Amino acid sequence: MNATDKEFKKNIDNFISKDAKLDPEAHKSFSNSKKVYLKGSSPDIQVPFREISLSDTPSQFGAEKNNPVLVYDTSGPYTDPSYPIDIRDGLPELRKVWIENRNDTELLTGPTSSYGQKRQDDPMLNNMRFNLKRQPRRAKQGQNVSQMHYAKKGIITPEMEFIAIRENQRREGISDFIQTQHTGENYGALIPKLITPEFVRDEVARGRAIIPANINHPESEPMIIGRNFLVKINANIGNSALGSSISEEVEKMVWSTRWGGDTVMDLSTGKNIHETREWIIRNSPVPIGTVPIYQALEKVDGKAEDLTWEIFRDTLIEQAEQGVDYFTIHAGVRLSYIPMTAKRMTGIVSRGGSIMAKWCLAHHKESFLYTHFEEICEIMKAYDVSFSLGDGLRPGSIYDANDEAQFAELKTLGELTQIAWKHDVQVMIEGPGHVPMHMIKENMDMQLKHCDEAPFYTLGPLTTDIAPGYDHITSGIGAAMIGWYGCAMLCYVTPKEHLGLPDKEDVREGIVTYKIAAHAADLAKGHPGAQIRDNALSKARFEFRWDDQFNLGLDPEKAKEFHDETLPQEGAKQAHFCSMCGPHFCSMKISQDVRDFAAEKGISEEEALKKGMEEKAIEFVKKGSEVYHKI
Amino acid sequence: MNATDKEFKKNIDNFISKDAKLDPEAHKSFSNSKKVYLKGSSPDIQVPFREISLSDTPSQFGAEKNNPVLVYDTSGPYTDPSYPIDIRDGLPELRKVWIENRNDTELLTGPTSSYGQKRQDDPMLNNMRFNLKRQPRRAKQGQNVSQMHYAKKGIITPEMEFIAIRENQRREGISDFIQTQHTGENYGALIPKLITPEFVRDEVARGRAIIPANINHPESEPMIIGRNFLVKINANIGNSALGSSISEEVEKMVWSTRWGGDTVMDLSTGKNIHETREWIIRNSPVPIGTVPIYQALEKVDGKAEDLTWEIFRDTLIEQAEQGVDYFTIHAGVRLSYIPMTAKRMTGIVSRGGSIMAKWCLAHHKESFLYTHFEEICEIMKAYDVSFSLGDGLRPGSIYDANDEAQFAELKTLGELTQIAWKHDVQVMIEGPGHVPMHMIKENMDMQLKHCDEAPFYTLGPLTTDIAPGYDHITSGIGAAMIGWYGCAMLCYVTPKEHLGLPDKEDVREGIVTYKIAAHAADLAKGHPGAQIRDNALSKARFEFRWDDQFNLGLDPEKAKEFHDETLPQEGAKQAHFCSMCGPHFCSMKISQDVRDFAAEKGISEEEALKKGMEEKAIEFVKKGSEVYHKI
Repeated sequence: MNATDKEFKKNIDNFISKDAKLDPEAHKSFSNSKKVYLKGSSPDIQVPFREISLSDTPSQFGAEKNNPVLVYDTSGPYTDPSYPIDIRDGLPELRKVWIENRNDTELLTGPTSSYGQKRQDDPMLNNMRFNLKRQPRRAKQGQNVSQMHYAKKGIITPEMEFIAIRENQRREGISDFIQTQHTGENYGALIPKLITPEFVRDEVARGRAIIPANINHPESEPMIIGRNFLVKINANIGNSALGSSISEEVEKMVWSTRWGGDTVMDLSTGKNIHETREWIIRNSPVPIGTVPIYQALEKVDGKAEDLTWEIFRDTLIEQAEQGVDYFTIHAGVRLSYIPMTAKRMTGIVSRGGSIMAKWCLAHHKESFLYTHFEEICEIMKAYDVSFSLGDGLRPGSIYDANDEAQFAELKTLGELTQIAWKHDVQVMIEGPGHVPMHMIKENMDMQLKHCDEAPFYTLGPLTTDIAPGYDHITSGIGAAMIGWYGCAMLCYVTPKEHLGLPDKEDVREGIVTYKIAAHAADLAKGHPGAQIRDNALSKARFEFRWDDQFNLGLDPEKAKEFHDETLPQEGAKQAHFCSMCGPHFCSMKISQDVRDFAAEKGISEEEALKKGMEEKAIEFVKKGSEVYHKI
Repeated sequence: MNATDKEFKKNIDNFISKDAKLDPEAHKSFSNSKKVYLKGSSPDIQVPFREISLSDTPSQFGAEKNNPVLVYDTSGPYTDPSYPIDIRDGLPELRKVWIENRNDTELLTGPTSSYGQKRQDDPMLNNMRFNLKRQPRRAKQGQNVSQMHYAKKGIITPEMEFIAIRENQRREGISDFIQTQHTGENYGALIPKLITPEFVRDEVARGRAIIPANINHPESEPMIIGRNFLVKINANIGNSALGSSISEEVEKMVWSTRWGGDTVMDLSTGKNIHETREWIIRNSPVPIGTVPIYQALEKVDGKAEDLTWEIFRDTLIEQAEQGVDYFTIHAGVRLSYIPMTAKRMTGIVSRGGSIMAKWCLAHHKESFLYTHFEEICEIMKAYDVSFSLGDGLRPGSIYDANDEAQFAELKTLGELTQIAWKHDVQVMIEGPGHVPMHMIKENMDMQLKHCDEAPFYTLGPLTTDIAPGYDHITSGIGAAMIGWYGCAMLCYVTPKEHLGLPDKEDVREGIVTYKIAAHAADLAKGHPGAQIRDNALSKARFEFRWDDQFNLGLDPEKAKEFHDETLPQEGAKQAHFCSMCGPHFCSMKISQDVRDFAAEKGISEEEALKKGMEEKAIEFVKKGSEVYHKI
């Protein structure tokens, strides 16, 4: 063994010894919650939800029962106590039977990419595969296995039915469906009161939504990305030459889905990228996205000008056969657009964009991504990999927002969308980046127009550049707004953006911030059912059901921790006041007095209430005007 | 001494022994920054700024000098190394001579409120006053000393000139005034390219802006709140029966202004509230707001129904003579509106609102705040205290947003605004609270309409209720948006909102989040000069001037700390890559190649650049295509 081999062996040993187990904290159940499954039309359609149990309303507020709340659950089998966690085996293949039943795919004897074969044939890597000994699957000759293809043929797949149930977020006939009347602008969202499988099919056929669902990732729970559905968020993970290890990346994926990531992008650029990815995909309940050009670049030792279509093509097949659900491909970076970036403040800031720009400059040619686009479509449809057409020329600063280069590329992405759709390949479009608030709407409008309503998937956007260390917030503002305007998926930004690699706490902060942005957008778009959770939490707050407040929140552990810093005693969880005002008086209770009076009199008319006020006043003073409970 | 007296004495001893010194960290200079003063038309008008020095652009990016950047500075004399910090003395009285020169006020021999006299005459409290032995000031009989009064008479006060210089945020003739062209909607903001003293006067006379500047707070540096000026933020401090001490509150004020709070509200409800306030005001470079009803309630032992106009009136005078710059007064909570809250999810959530509702219920009468409103105006104009008309019926949940009770109260606040203006008393209007995104604009529109463009001052609003522990973010989204729509000041929300009392780190997080929201709004409104800081930071980022990036950010310390977690070595501050992509390649550098080529050829036309591309390609490959620097 030479030095390199020795180091390589050491890497593998580390991998095996340290990484075969998941932190139990990453897969414990949520407090007062249980995993429930709503059944579809056949017994193999089992749609997961988290059911949050609530305590009864205390007697002084009316002693009513509170229905449990169902919430969308991205955490997969990890939060199902009946599922035995062993990440060496990977997750159960829930979609396998659906894929097999369509009878349009075949099992391959092994990887067909030369890189995939090379890795498989390397005996040193054997130990890194644990029990994962799967055969890749591919469309039979001449078949197209994309969800868009089925949708256009009028077929409602089990994936579509699964999604319809999942998006509704509620049981049939449930009575606590209360929603503030939608009076504002929803910017063209057309969300039905009840999402049906047919609606899902129609949106996918129209290209207005995508279901990222590679036939080689049967472990994933179907989900949809489109502006007439719940706004989704993506979390990026990935090592780099400077940071992290394989084990950390996989655990980040599990944490990401636990906190609410709807998809995960693996942006690794370091060693063992192939094996890391395999391990992530086999254990991921959510779709996985990648940027294949990153790995292609590794294969040519980082020299962009040495990239070729053949190397890229082999990489696409390698990753498609592992099960990547969507590929970011920067095919819109055209040679003639590169000079448009010369007068920018921050030039080209997309990694993929800069690789392609470098290639185009070095060869003085259109990139192979653009010239071979139809061949890429042929690969995509054989595995049902969705396009995430990358915005290689997105602005990297407020100064560069909405400029010529960005919009020129966007138009090209629109043209490429039409080509992909011709092949029934699913497409979403990536967007910026850095955009001040007053320019965000223009971005969304241009995207809808040029890309014919293909789903938009933006990174933030950051609404100012003056807060390094807080870019989850500068961008969370823009993300919420563009979600409201119609953006279908929001790529998270962590507090470490522009500064360093996110650690676990940064990922948590980034995801929760983006869940807030997505949910705020769902409320603003008037998504049916979105407000149930807000209402349940507000009611719990009013009634001082502290534990219910924590459990209904996006981050129950942090909420409880913050509460306990001021009032650590267990008794304080039942306290009828909060630490902001102290026990001396509390504004919530006076409201209850008003309400009690209304209920007692059996009147609801304002006029009647007014008349009764005098009577109330006397009674109120007589009772000693004590509107709070001492503890 | 009885037990209570002993405890009281102990409190005072603690106060003296622990609190007479400020944490040196709270008043050190910012890195690479110095305090500078721009002079007005007379030598006593010295407007403070923080000047951030920047390093030169590295040679490979063009070796140019970068002008220092001036930023609005709320930190007061604390960051001026030539100022000797001794909080026992209070800050210098920079406005004293201006007030004296107007010759319309008189010094009183002592407090005229009975409570103020009682506290002054209590020998036990002597030690708590240190060197603060000031006499309160009041308008001479028949005089009105409000800035609005002067403005309506056509007088440009030194305060107005100070503000004009401060709002422009730049030196005359400075050349780096670059701004993205404003193409979106600015929702009626009418911000001139250069803010003049006359413009300030006109806006104040019109009631569209206020200058909170009590004649008893001459230490404060003049600032303005109005939608044609920079968006401001407020930080709340204040103890409660359960938390914190006097010393912590004062230090919170200093930290708050250091991080960027434009005003500070003292919401204390506990012991020694009078002395705490005195100490805060004497040391505060920013306007101080209070909610006088809180203290009035303390005076009647927490029994709202025992409140009287006389007690409230005495409290107003007590606080006005201490120097409080604006009072939150919930005079819009009318008896007939209270029943409107009966069907709400969360009833009345404003503390002041619930106190008044309780009083109205108990007495079955309109509140004394409403019936004595003109008398309140008489007090306000004798000291120039501004109204912050409280929204006692603001919604406490998404469900309750924009309801009948809220808008009924808002109309009343509009009527009260007209009364206050009749007295030349300055007014701003408080707003919600909890509002989903699509209902925020309606709030702003209704406020502008009903309150005739008096400045709006909102708490958030929170755009969803499902994230306790992250309400700085749920509300930062709403705050940025309403700022863009025209809100003049944003009251911060910390991560502890709804859960507990904020500590120092929470205050920091809350303030920086709100500075982001305010600045994002300034950019979106097209405030001249707002983008200079973004541009400077973006340029530093592009040129890998790491220290400049940190120093230009809202929180330099956190940015540096985050960067150093991944790349702690000092050398990394000069590194031409960041840890996200690693040293292997970097997207920023390819942009520089494109730019270099343009500069070298002396061409800027796109066509010419296109032609030159082939030549560039050859040269590029010849140079070895190395676009990054090894370290």
